[in-house]
Amino acid sequence: MISIPVELKDRSYDVDIESHSLERAGVALASLGSVSRVLLVMDDNVEPLYGERVSSAIVDRGLDLDVVVIPAGEESKSIDVAYSLWEHFLDCGADRHSVAVALGGGVVGDLTGFVAATYQRGIRFYQIPTTLLAQVDSSVGGKTAIDLPKGKNMVGAFYQPSGVMIDPEVLQSLPDDQYRSGLGEVIKYGASLDKTFFETLEKQVEQINARDSDILGKIVAQCCRLKAKIVAEDEKEISGRRAVLNYGHTFGHAIETTLGYGTIPHGFGVSIGSILAARLAARLASKGDKRFNSIDETWINRQIELTQKLHLPAFLADLGRRFGDSPETSPQRLVELMSTDKKTEFGKLNFILPTSLGECVYLRGIAPEDVLAVLT
Amino acid sequence: MISIPVELKDRSYDVDIESHSLERAGVALASLGSVSRVLLVMDDNVEPLYGERVSSAIVDRGLDLDVVVIPAGEESKSIDVAYSLWEHFLDCGADRHSVAVALGGGVVGDLTGFVAATYQRGIRFYQIPTTLLAQVDSSVGGKTAIDLPKGKNMVGAFYQPSGVMIDPEVLQSLPDDQYRSGLGEVIKYGASLDKTFFETLEKQVEQINARDSDILGKIVAQCCRLKAKIVAEDEKEISGRRAVLNYGHTFGHAIETTLGYGTIPHGFGVSIGSILAARLAARLASKGDKRFNSIDETWINRQIELTQKLHLPAFLADLGRRFGDSPETSPQRLVELMSTDKKTEFGKLNFILPTSLGECVYLRGIAPEDVLAVLT
Repeated sequence: MISIPVELKDRSYDVDIESHSLERAGVALASLGSVSRVLLVMDDNVEPLYGERVSSAIVDRGLDLDVVVIPAGEESKSIDVAYSLWEHFLDCGADRHSVAVALGGGVVGDLTGFVAATYQRGIRFYQIPTTLLAQVDSSVGGKTAIDLPKGKNMVGAFYQPSGVMIDPEVLQSLPDDQYRSGLGEVIKYGASLDKTFFETLEKQVEQINARDSDILGKIVAQCCRLKAKIVAEDEKEISGRRAVLNYGHTFGHAIETTLGYGTIPHGFGVSIGSILAARLAARLASKGDKRFNSIDETWINRQIELTQKLHLPAFLADLGRRFGDSPETSPQRLVELMSTDKKTEFGKLNFILPTSLGECVYLRGIAPEDVLAVLT
Repeated sequence: MISIPVELKDRSYDVDIESHSLERAGVALASLGSVSRVLLVMDDNVEPLYGERVSSAIVDRGLDLDVVVIPAGEESKSIDVAYSLWEHFLDCGADRHSVAVALGGGVVGDLTGFVAATYQRGIRFYQIPTTLLAQVDSSVGGKTAIDLPKGKNMVGAFYQPSGVMIDPEVLQSLPDDQYRSGLGEVIKYGASLDKTFFETLEKQVEQINARDSDILGKIVAQCCRLKAKIVAEDEKEISGRRAVLNYGHTFGHAIETTLGYGTIPHGFGVSIGSILAARLAARLASKGDKRFNSIDETWINRQIELTQKLHLPAFLADLGRRFGDSPETSPQRLVELMSTDKKTEFGKLNFILPTSLGECVYLRGIAPEDVLAVLT
């Protein structure tokens, strides 16, 4: 087992990565202590795959269990579904010693975390992520949220889990697009934070495409390690440090929004967004900003190459090839959407931009015309 | 100005008590720094009284202001109203540098605090309480919440304000029942936490009934001081220490619930509940629990006397005299309701019980028959 500590004082916890650990869910939950009840939340995709296995592991440890199955998909990150969970928790007698467990991807994790953060002003919360995206990103760090019709993740809380258990074996059951989506975030970690890791990914393309469980366990662990370090430095995105985790995301969110949530997997937006961010950095370099001198065509092409070898879209046009008709992504509309992003402050555009391989900065107040230029 | 620090490390703030401070709201908010926008929330009772005064004070300091007026009453502590606030905040471009301001009583404070805690995972929040109840209790300590149809405060967050500004002059405009309701909490502080304060209240009955602003400012300050100390010791009700603030509340909540929220003012339930808690302590003493030996008829009568001199109900039967027909408060139903209280753990009944004047303990696992006995 690889165990990665997330160090946040009285909110510290471990991310445990181990093959076939789903069967140990009951042991892990019982070890939290004083558990009056386990509230297991999953969606109707995950339930037939892993519901029985995890439920049995919990009941076998003598814990009281309630199960809630929600519809799969981003639509479940809604106030209506959150409301139904609060009511369900109350109906089954959940108290402050109960633990909410999210078994699933980012939607189930974000939703369950938000409901746990707010039910009776906060009960414990445990993550068992089953998608690559959730394993390397959303399950670690305490960001929980639901969507409003006008904006993704607009309602939520910073609320750390009591623990995260990752079983890399579950990645074998992921549909191809979802698996690739997670790889979009994996590349992001390498490109923006860890040169050595990026180079390892370049060398392991074949094993990654073959979903080698051993390699995947190590990749997930390194992503969690990188994320844990940054979260420990800036848990609530106050200093700006945590924002570096959003490399590629300002563009990515705007692309996702303009196409309609869920039209493309999240990581596809991130992979295209990362390359757009690199192009934006190169543009600023060409205009004399020396911080971005290392970001040239060679650098950008290396990122494009890894992206394409892992069968991820590198350009907006790739989405058209992949999803049929070229989708509507007018540059003006994208810039407009980015100006309502949560990272917006006082109406200015802010981006995470690469400065060299494995390094990046958070830059505020970028002119909309520079952003438009790299989109056209 | 009396300034009371609430010491919670990076979440510390001051409670500032000063007559005519409403006019200084803009100065206080501007001093928080980096304020992109002020979102002022009040209800339709408070708006005609103080809306213009506070709005002008904010605009005069050059701050961008949006105002939301919600219907007065507990019904506004609902997910529907919270939702409308989230949408309003988003529509008016509120970002992470915006500050939500609650101008009003406990409903507006709890609701606005919850919305601030969860909008974009948390924006700053400032309290300007206008009822005695909110000034001495709900505005300090970071408890925010909305209700579910099946339970009060079932959804919420521990979320500290960035500051609290109290103007004792606004108490002059309070309807009599609301003023008395706040006094119910004031007596609670004395009886359960501060003998000297209780004795001061006994001596100042006349001035309190005449709403002497100077005396009220000092009373509010002492309540905030007592609460701040306990909140600093146990911000999130983990050690059990914070629970002592709920003296009288387990009975009180059950009484409020059985009558329907809002049928009686919150503090009336607390004042009756405090005396029931004292009777429960006396019963345990009579059964041999030496911790409660000081709680006898003399003690109870002293609490009843102060309660009655401040024109508060001391007994369930008083509610009938005050609100017309004697309301339905079957002992069995009250015990049943208490067993779903948030302070319930593993289904046992827990109470804050007095041990002597100005002291109390949190006692777990009390037998339902003892609780029934003091209700009948």
